[in-house]
Amino acid sequence: MKKIIISIISFLFMANTAFSQDQKINVIVFGAHPDDCDQDTGGTAILFAQLGHRVKFVSLTNGDAGHYAMGGGELAKIRIAEAMEAGKRFGVEYEVLDNHDGELMPTLANRLKVIREIRKWNADIVIAPRPNDYHPDHRYTGILVQDAAYMVIVPNVAPEVPPLKKNPVFLYSEDRFQKPNPFEPDIAVIIDPVFDKKIYAMAAHESQFFDWLPWTSGNLDKVPKDEKSRLDFLAKWRAFTPNETTLKTLKKWYGDKAIGVKHAEGFEICEYGKQPSDEELKKLFPMLRK
Amino acid sequence: MKKIIISIISFLFMANTAFSQDQKINVIVFGAHPDDCDQDTGGTAILFAQLGHRVKFVSLTNGDAGHYAMGGGELAKIRIAEAMEAGKRFGVEYEVLDNHDGELMPTLANRLKVIREIRKWNADIVIAPRPNDYHPDHRYTGILVQDAAYMVIVPNVAPEVPPLKKNPVFLYSEDRFQKPNPFEPDIAVIIDPVFDKKIYAMAAHESQFFDWLPWTSGNLDKVPKDEKSRLDFLAKWRAFTPNETTLKTLKKWYGDKAIGVKHAEGFEICEYGKQPSDEELKKLFPMLRK
Amino acid sequence: MKKIIISIISFLFMANTAFSQDQKINVIVFGAHPDDCDQDTGGTAILFAQLGHRVKFVSLTNGDAGHYAMGGGELAKIRIAEAMEAGKRFGVEYEVLDNHDGELMPTLANRLKVIREIRKWNADIVIAPRPNDYHPDHRYTGILVQDAAYMVIVPNVAPEVPPLKKNPVFLYSEDRFQKPNPFEPDIAVIIDPVFDKKIYAMAAHESQFFDWLPWTSGNLDKVPKDEKSRLDFLAKWRAFTPNETTLKTLKKWYGDKAIGVKHAEGFEICEYGKQPSDEELKKLFPMLRK
Amino acid sequence: MKKIIISIISFLFMANTAFSQDQKINVIVFGAHPDDCDQDTGGTAILFAQLGHRVKFVSLTNGDAGHYAMGGGELAKIRIAEAMEAGKRFGVEYEVLDNHDGELMPTLANRLKVIREIRKWNADIVIAPRPNDYHPDHRYTGILVQDAAYMVIVPNVAPEVPPLKKNPVFLYSEDRFQKPNPFEPDIAVIIDPVFDKKIYAMAAHESQFFDWLPWTSGNLDKVPKDEKSRLDFLAKWRAFTPNETTLKTLKKWYGDKAIGVKHAEGFEICEYGKQPSDEELKKLFPMLRK
Amino acid sequence: MKKIIISIISFLFMANTAFSQDQKINVIVFGAHPDDCDQDTGGTAILFAQLGHRVKFVSLTNGDAGHYAMGGGELAKIRIAEAMEAGKRFGVEYEVLDNHDGELMPTLANRLKVIREIRKWNADIVIAPRPNDYHPDHRYTGILVQDAAYMVIVPNVAPEVPPLKKNPVFLYSEDRFQKPNPFEPDIAVIIDPVFDKKIYAMAAHESQFFDWLPWTSGNLDKVPKDEKSRLDFLAKWRAFTPNETTLKTLKKWYGDKAIGVKHAEGFEICEYGKQPSDEELKKLFPMLRK
Amino acid sequence: MKKIIISIISFLFMANTAFSQDQKINVIVFGAHPDDCDQDTGGTAILFAQLGHRVKFVSLTNGDAGHYAMGGGELAKIRIAEAMEAGKRFGVEYEVLDNHDGELMPTLANRLKVIREIRKWNADIVIAPRPNDYHPDHRYTGILVQDAAYMVIVPNVAPEVPPLKKNPVFLYSEDRFQKPNPFEPDIAVIIDPVFDKKIYAMAAHESQFFDWLPWTSGNLDKVPKDEKSRLDFLAKWRAFTPNETTLKTLKKWYGDKAIGVKHAEGFEICEYGKQPSDEELKKLFPMLRK
Repeated sequence: MKKIIISIISFLFMANTAFSQDQKINVIVFGAHPDDCDQDTGGTAILFAQLGHRVKFVSLTNGDAGHYAMGGGELAKIRIAEAMEAGKRFGVEYEVLDNHDGELMPTLANRLKVIREIRKWNADIVIAPRPNDYHPDHRYTGILVQDAAYMVIVPNVAPEVPPLKKNPVFLYSEDRFQKPNPFEPDIAVIIDPVFDKKIYAMAAHESQFFDWLPWTSGNLDKVPKDEKSRLDFLAKWRAFTPNETTLKTLKKWYGDKAIGVKHAEGFEICEYGKQPSDEELKKLFPMLRK
Repeated sequence: MKKIIISIISFLFMANTAFSQDQKINVIVFGAHPDDCDQDTGGTAILFAQLGHRVKFVSLTNGDAGHYAMGGGELAKIRIAEAMEAGKRFGVEYEVLDNHDGELMPTLANRLKVIREIRKWNADIVIAPRPNDYHPDHRYTGILVQDAAYMVIVPNVAPEVPPLKKNPVFLYSEDRFQKPNPFEPDIAVIIDPVFDKKIYAMAAHESQFFDWLPWTSGNLDKVPKDEKSRLDFLAKWRAFTPNETTLKTLKKWYGDKAIGVKHAEGFEICEYGKQPSDEELKKLFPMLRK
Repeated sequence: MKKIIISIISFLFMANTAFSQDQKINVIVFGAHPDDCDQDTGGTAILFAQLGHRVKFVSLTNGDAGHYAMGGGELAKIRIAEAMEAGKRFGVEYEVLDNHDGELMPTLANRLKVIREIRKWNADIVIAPRPNDYHPDHRYTGILVQDAAYMVIVPNVAPEVPPLKKNPVFLYSEDRFQKPNPFEPDIAVIIDPVFDKKIYAMAAHESQFFDWLPWTSGNLDKVPKDEKSRLDFLAKWRAFTPNETTLKTLKKWYGDKAIGVKHAEGFEICEYGKQPSDEELKKLFPMLRK
Repeated sequence: MKKIIISIISFLFMANTAFSQDQKINVIVFGAHPDDCDQDTGGTAILFAQLGHRVKFVSLTNGDAGHYAMGGGELAKIRIAEAMEAGKRFGVEYEVLDNHDGELMPTLANRLKVIREIRKWNADIVIAPRPNDYHPDHRYTGILVQDAAYMVIVPNVAPEVPPLKKNPVFLYSEDRFQKPNPFEPDIAVIIDPVFDKKIYAMAAHESQFFDWLPWTSGNLDKVPKDEKSRLDFLAKWRAFTPNETTLKTLKKWYGDKAIGVKHAEGFEICEYGKQPSDEELKKLFPMLRK
Repeated sequence: MKKIIISIISFLFMANTAFSQDQKINVIVFGAHPDDCDQDTGGTAILFAQLGHRVKFVSLTNGDAGHYAMGGGELAKIRIAEAMEAGKRFGVEYEVLDNHDGELMPTLANRLKVIREIRKWNADIVIAPRPNDYHPDHRYTGILVQDAAYMVIVPNVAPEVPPLKKNPVFLYSEDRFQKPNPFEPDIAVIIDPVFDKKIYAMAAHESQFFDWLPWTSGNLDKVPKDEKSRLDFLAKWRAFTPNETTLKTLKKWYGDKAIGVKHAEGFEICEYGKQPSDEELKKLFPMLRK
Repeated sequence: MKKIIISIISFLFMANTAFSQDQKINVIVFGAHPDDCDQDTGGTAILFAQLGHRVKFVSLTNGDAGHYAMGGGELAKIRIAEAMEAGKRFGVEYEVLDNHDGELMPTLANRLKVIREIRKWNADIVIAPRPNDYHPDHRYTGILVQDAAYMVIVPNVAPEVPPLKKNPVFLYSEDRFQKPNPFEPDIAVIIDPVFDKKIYAMAAHESQFFDWLPWTSGNLDKVPKDEKSRLDFLAKWRAFTPNETTLKTLKKWYGDKAIGVKHAEGFEICEYGKQPSDEELKKLFPMLRK
């Protein structure tokens, strides 16, 4: 599939993948750790769920390394329980795969797990981090999901799970990394109306947001104890305030409604999945249409 | 080998790798699947062959996954037979390595296979996809060939095959991907005179161009049945019409002859092989001199 | 850790990692082969050592492939002995890990070795090549060190070695590669005062600079025999003359002192480690303060 | 757990794993290919199922290599469908894992899959081939199941699936191999009353018993076409007539009923699982009590 | 090295590895988990140490899985601390390698670690479990140490650590497994005089002997709380009472002193290391000479 | 393929693999290092060759570690050249695969190499060491060849090389190891008439027999310098004098001619290949018929 022959391909093989207005959209999000999907896409996920669509969060590791006083299976069980609670609060399905935290590698076995997840969810949209991020598990999550793109439609791969009819749209979630190239949002979703709900859902990952991450920066003693202060603390810390680039994208999709937006989530289209038109994106992201 | 010391290196160690006008040029092309080399470099390969030079196509996988109704060794045998037929039509040698389609990984064992191929062909030019492309096998083909660069001259690596005297020129074949950086053609070859021959040769991959790829886009029923219509169909679909960037490169090499060109193949110099001057490129690509 | 929330994080969790003026700075440099650290950071290392700070060079392979007439363990022992001599001359600790030259892979086992080295050295600064360079071992050295960043602070990873309290500053050493993005020096160090010493120390790698590398370019016969001429030869060949970009960075840090500088080493801040302010960089690179 | 301290252990830690007469026994059988479990344990499985107990067959590969005219995913899908039909006929659950036939390796990832299967089935009895058999996949199935023994009770391993309370009894199914040591049946089950049913159920694996295996011995043309003759053919070919050793074991358990038995399945207790007493075996194999 | 040519080899190349009466004997023991060396060889180790010889225990995993309420790095740190305490009590050096408990694989990287340990300890005697034992980590410990035998004398392997001059004697520690062949003690050591000391030293592994192992058999509540009762409990549980085979071996070495012995440790000579004569064994096991 | 159903199988599927008296027999021998095949089967190979049959020796590693003063590719090239010379002297084809000496692992990639070698040679007989021997490379050679048995007839495995029509006879070459079970020769070949030729051919491995092996036993100074004395030295050292078990087998096949035999090579039938009758063995080993 080469060069600028896309238009010709379109002509020859007009993809009949348009779906009707009232069809359910299936979104699957991959993160490295229980809490990554939540941070990157939690607001958008709530919006999808509220509109009756189906969202699944998949953590590729069980989070069994990210703590200062626990570890291994004992920690994994806590992280899984927290993820289940978060899933309930978000209104999404949550699955935690059994890979060691801090040891995720882009193996074929892991790629096949991703392929099966995407197929079983019959995904229209797949979201993952880019392969440039500060944590190796994040980067390899990005690579694993890239490597699943296209293969999801090949019947001879993972033949026990029926292939998708079409390659879904693959999206990268927003990050701040500049090398080798900066994140460029093709879509941005206003999450102001559901921001509190996102923070509340995220807060289910107690061992992550109120133990481990504060500890890594030497501020464990500054973490509030009561529920409400914790939510405020988390809301300030994970505000997802749109930067200039994101703001520009918000304006493209929302027009004037984008002015003064406080919280947004951005997404960049991965070149390895379906390349949707703006029209198709509006169908896939019905919250953009409002 | 660092920084801007290249000129000094040149001065100290003037590489005596120039070759005489009438010497055979050895070109080796790596693709992920039987048909990839053909698409990316088929026209150029025909031109090399017509001038009496030696071209080899190597497919790193046996293509045993790319079909909707066959698979495994059975499919591989068909793909191999088609590749042999294509090789004859192109006038090039064709080899298909025994790696599963859809499972190519950048292992040391695979890298060594690439090193041996390059050495045995005594390659002056090595061509491969960039490590950013829509199919994981394509990306890992790019990485494997990158990882073979320079190592081809190290005698202690794969010691049973004599090392090359010099690092060949490594080229990326043209693609449309923009991230993390777009393809930038250093060379572009007009293939108008041999375009029909290229299409005819490519058409040998029947199970690929008339079964599998149309199926993936849901258009199997639109594939013509008779030979001639199939060639027309393929010619339209894989026209390799030069885009603006390629056109600019064509002009650099061909001058006014580039005007109105319909079909061209572009190549970008990989930084990990020999960095040839324009003068050297003209010797390596004699079709540019006409 | 996402988006433009960095300022807020700083506010919430002001990292108390400033260190006093007279504290020793611990620098660890990773290279693929015995001699890589030397070339990329040798001058800077001497300056650190002269100021009483601690520098360690780690070669991730034992260099057992880089020669035309020797190989294997026999060559490795020579390369190790040369590295020990170089370490003495530089005034740094030198360690050579037992991985085959030409076969370095980004495995978890190798990543853990890097993590342990960084922790045991209690590193403030970690230096490595970028993952784009002409030799696969160089690229995978870059990836392995990237993959160690952040993990050095996680107590559950490599639990038998106490984690660092803070993620160090990770730096890339200078290279000339442009794809997918060019090297951009954030820091550049004038090494004119110690350039001769650097060349002398590098010259300890006799089998590398006076055997192997000249051989690879077909110029073994041009290598001088006497010690002094060899040093001149090496000094011309590995001059590390600043290019325009490096010069600009030199000016930022040194002001007018940068004019007419002949030899410099540049470093780019890796996004996966601590992101230091200019103020912090001045503390970490005391030679910039003069 | 060492030496002859077993009696003391028993005294100290009397395992409270006895189960009541009317409790369901959970049996899980691992084979390399779809049809292996069936051959080795099919009669016993039917007997368990008829008594109301739960049996599961797990094929560790998808059988995608064992045919002369098909292969890959296409063949896998046929093999899986045949296995599902066989499962119905046997009255057992059947699962086919997605590993390539002929490529099963004793990796940690595969071991963990086995551990999870055993746990999820809450197995009392686990059956697998010995690690000495003519097909590498059979041998590695034996090793993988051995390697899962004991680990099934360790909560930190595969922590997302609750561990078993007790190590199950692990059994090897009968084979004819003598090196390094011959199969020694500790248990043997008379399957005469269900032999026809076993053959009928096995016959669901058409592509295996009527295509592939006859082909491997050059006798494809001797395979009958009609259903009844096929069953006769298979019954003669896979008679599982007890040899002397098996007969001796049959006599131990069945007494005079063992005389004249035509079909039997033997099992040897693996040393790495629970070491049951005869009393416990009678509870675990209720068909022995009749 | 083949067949019955051993005597001829001896004649031609009389190994000059005899050592003088007063030379220190270097013993290295490999176990899978912190506590395995202790159980299998603790008494013998004390006897060696008391005679002024050097003993090292190496655990190939960090024991980070063997507990019901802790796991990961947190548990590993406890296990390591316990091992250090045990080492002190035994009078031996103790090292715990950073491999996950329950995940030890016979990789080349792990084999090289074993080779380096043996060389650095300048071992005369190497002790490890046989590759048949109930825990996969035990079996792979056996394989890894087998795979290190002979390679310890090859200079091109792990060239940065000088090879041994001679292949040491490799011994298997006693176990109760019968398949594929039973343990056959070539040596057995009476440990009655140091049995209490062994138990006391072993008791340092509190999380193992008083938490985890009792838990696995459902008897955590039966574990005594006070120190003295715990030692009695452990002494009864791990008595290492010689069985008939061991008794026979004891008689060979000790004569009548073997009568009535209560505690003994047996060892079988591995065929892959040096094959010592009885005379040499007496020198290597000076406690046998008394 | 189970139990005592062999006779029935024979009845149903009489293998039509008998070959005519004057057909060429194809023998392929696998060793770990250049010189292993020679030692184990050299005499038998000469006899096959003298009768006009085809023999191939394959060394799975390139021997690049077995020397005290050389290593790596440099050593490999010497070992390969010696092997080529040995092949000429033996009258067999010799191939040395590019795997590091001392690092052979039972990977799928290596297994496939063995499968392809067996198929390409159209082997009737495959010979390899047992998986119990003193050198890990020897053991893994045994495992790799075992793992190739049967797979050589499966068309979907390594589909680019046509499968064999029948599983060849797989034989183990003689060794002296007793655990887990001793070598039991099914065949033994008198090599007295060709013993001198065998020694002369083996002597081509100079770096092995006159450098490395003597060095490993500290007897390098005892190696003769002149050609004739070296041959005597080697003949004494590698006499392959039949032991009692071998003698018994010799008598079975040769009758009284076995009396007083000085040199013989024994072979044990591997259970994973074809199980030949004595009649078939006589056809496969025509030297036994004389």
